[in-house]
Amino acid sequence: MDKYKDFVALNVGTLAGRLSNLAILCDQIGSDPKTWRVKEVGDGNLNLVFIVEGSKGAAVVKQALPYVRLVGDSWPLPLKRSFFEYHALTRQSQRDPGMTPKIFSFDENQAIIVMEYLTPHVILRRAFIEGCEIPDLPDKLGHFLARTLFRGSDLCMDTKLRKADLALFADNVALCDITESLVFSDPYYEAKLNRHTSPQLDGIVAQLRADRDLKVAAQRLKHIFANMPETLIHGDLHTGSVMVTDNDVRVIDPEFAFYGPMAFDVGILLANFWMSYFSQRGHEGSRPRDSMRRYLLKTTVKIWNIFRAEFSKLWHSERTGILYQRQLFEDQNDALGSAQALDQFLNNIWVDMLGFAGVEIHRRVLGLAHNADFELIVDLDLRAACETKALKLGRYLAVNRAQIHSMAEINTLAERLETEIVT
Amino acid sequence: MDKYKDFVALNVGTLAGRLSNLAILCDQIGSDPKTWRVKEVGDGNLNLVFIVEGSKGAAVVKQALPYVRLVGDSWPLPLKRSFFEYHALTRQSQRDPGMTPKIFSFDENQAIIVMEYLTPHVILRRAFIEGCEIPDLPDKLGHFLARTLFRGSDLCMDTKLRKADLALFADNVALCDITESLVFSDPYYEAKLNRHTSPQLDGIVAQLRADRDLKVAAQRLKHIFANMPETLIHGDLHTGSVMVTDNDVRVIDPEFAFYGPMAFDVGILLANFWMSYFSQRGHEGSRPRDSMRRYLLKTTVKIWNIFRAEFSKLWHSERTGILYQRQLFEDQNDALGSAQALDQFLNNIWVDMLGFAGVEIHRRVLGLAHNADFELIVDLDLRAACETKALKLGRYLAVNRAQIHSMAEINTLAERLETEIVT
Repeated sequence: MDKYKDFVALNVGTLAGRLSNLAILCDQIGSDPKTWRVKEVGDGNLNLVFIVEGSKGAAVVKQALPYVRLVGDSWPLPLKRSFFEYHALTRQSQRDPGMTPKIFSFDENQAIIVMEYLTPHVILRRAFIEGCEIPDLPDKLGHFLARTLFRGSDLCMDTKLRKADLALFADNVALCDITESLVFSDPYYEAKLNRHTSPQLDGIVAQLRADRDLKVAAQRLKHIFANMPETLIHGDLHTGSVMVTDNDVRVIDPEFAFYGPMAFDVGILLANFWMSYFSQRGHEGSRPRDSMRRYLLKTTVKIWNIFRAEFSKLWHSERTGILYQRQLFEDQNDALGSAQALDQFLNNIWVDMLGFAGVEIHRRVLGLAHNADFELIVDLDLRAACETKALKLGRYLAVNRAQIHSMAEINTLAERLETEIVT
Repeated sequence: MDKYKDFVALNVGTLAGRLSNLAILCDQIGSDPKTWRVKEVGDGNLNLVFIVEGSKGAAVVKQALPYVRLVGDSWPLPLKRSFFEYHALTRQSQRDPGMTPKIFSFDENQAIIVMEYLTPHVILRRAFIEGCEIPDLPDKLGHFLARTLFRGSDLCMDTKLRKADLALFADNVALCDITESLVFSDPYYEAKLNRHTSPQLDGIVAQLRADRDLKVAAQRLKHIFANMPETLIHGDLHTGSVMVTDNDVRVIDPEFAFYGPMAFDVGILLANFWMSYFSQRGHEGSRPRDSMRRYLLKTTVKIWNIFRAEFSKLWHSERTGILYQRQLFEDQNDALGSAQALDQFLNNIWVDMLGFAGVEIHRRVLGLAHNADFELIVDLDLRAACETKALKLGRYLAVNRAQIHSMAEINTLAERLETEIVT
């Protein structure tokens, strides 16, 4: 039986009629649907997103489509991603309360999630393009990473529940396939969907696609991505999945969620900071962005440090799962054994995180889905110059990841790339 | 609804009556159940195993019990393990035909598998205890490892099917729990179910339980075991799960099967060869087992080499999955990239395999489930001397695994441990 056989896409004209019986929505925004104002605001690649405003307030209505919106119905995509998004949101909101939009209702058959309208929030990527320094980021995002990744893992959860949840999310095949193909493979050969700033980048693109060590590294990272379900990850945690105000930070859009490696979310997020860093030159015009660049690099350092600190705190206070049990360490008066294990655990995340960051940078410049950070730079020579620096950092991270020991090393290299010609 | 609510354990008296309507069994052994001779032969820790002989032949009837047979109904264990065993057997028989017993029927509700009666096969562990050198082992077992591990992985399978299968086997929680607890944790602290040859081993046991690096290594290996579902593994591939004649080798009892790390099956198997090696002194009496010892070490080398060779062959001929795609390597005239990736892949298996071998050795001497290899040595001082050498090798492997580069190094150390006092 097809769960989605009665699926009908919403539109601005039908939404109020179709959702007028939803009590929780009426409570939220006012119960007279005739007064509702509906607009479609989806700027993502996959879904319909509406803002519905009534006399009492507003809400967001997100509906999956049975295909990739960016490409059209030639690329079908299961509606069930809405189910995974809903279940990821409920788990994230338990693991780090207040960091995701409130969920009002979920209609599985229509693939509709009704949730909190975040206002006056803006997408973090846009804020960065405009040169805005957001103060609360490291604290909120570092904690979010540590709490969601730790609390969904065998370090903390009852493993029976984790294994059942892993099985539930194992069916998110189509969205995993997008990442497996678009992040780890397509950028490294002439795949059909690829595009890049041409002809400016032709040379470096050919170089990267002939780079044996890079290709092997990318495939090793794909192996880890596909075969290491340590925890429920967001799966698409770039700066377009973060909304901010001056004093609030929220994480949205976890439809790529599945049980994967902890390092993935961390790496994707930091990669998008480094891309923003290299894109600043393309947006500064006559007002130099030196302060913004310093802010971005400092923020990567802080996010990693806060992630590490919070993860370590949870290691000591909430390590109730089957891995690294206290019986073997603290309970034997071997606190140093626990510390040694934690160091190794974090080191493994560090190394893989750098690799994931490297390939994320590449795919955003060489693959199908580009970033507005670079895309909004109209001058193609300037855009290509920014992208080249990012590509070089990405290659360095992906191939050299086991030999890098601190954020300071990476940021020093980023600064050199930004100011000198480094080949 | 409880799938197993009508479950009734078989016994020697009821078996013929209950299975007399099973056409495929009648075809196999003769259709007059009154002439069937039934005996119970289960010497394992978990299940009932009957041999049923009729006028035309014989078959094995294996039935799970809702508890651990070794311990009794104080330790419940799901009947569903029979479902996992059946599904593992069907997959293994596709991936390496002829290496598992033929399956005649499966009754899920009664947790009964009817299968080929292997005769005159003996359990490999018993053959080793008696000092028998089995010629075909490396070839058959090396191929079995490579074929089942490669063909169940994302190197080969359609990843959608692999992910669905992973979800199916993710429910084999109870049997994973046995391994997670008994192999990776219990041996390293004073867990209730542990036992060891006492007082002879008290000193080294205390030493190992205070060994920080060893405990951290064991937990890292547990992390890999629980969080790296690369392929469908047998999950319990010791020498008691292998049956042999002079010219046949079969692998039985895969009820621990689930999607786990490739290295696990390889490591468990080789660990049991090394334990047999150290146990020979306890069985030789007046007839020295020098030749048997040489045979055992040579066989470990051959199994690893044949595993490597067959895995490499499959890498080149059947690499049709999402990992290390040919589009990135061979199709770009980059055969060397593919070879480099294969080397790294095999190296990762090698390092983890040694770790799994190390902890397997420990748990068989320090934990709940001991091996007949050592248990049948009546002289406790002699048994403890054999076990001590094994424990030392196990510690070396588990902690030092990333620095060991060849089987020759390990076997040289094993020979030193066997002939000298090495502390």
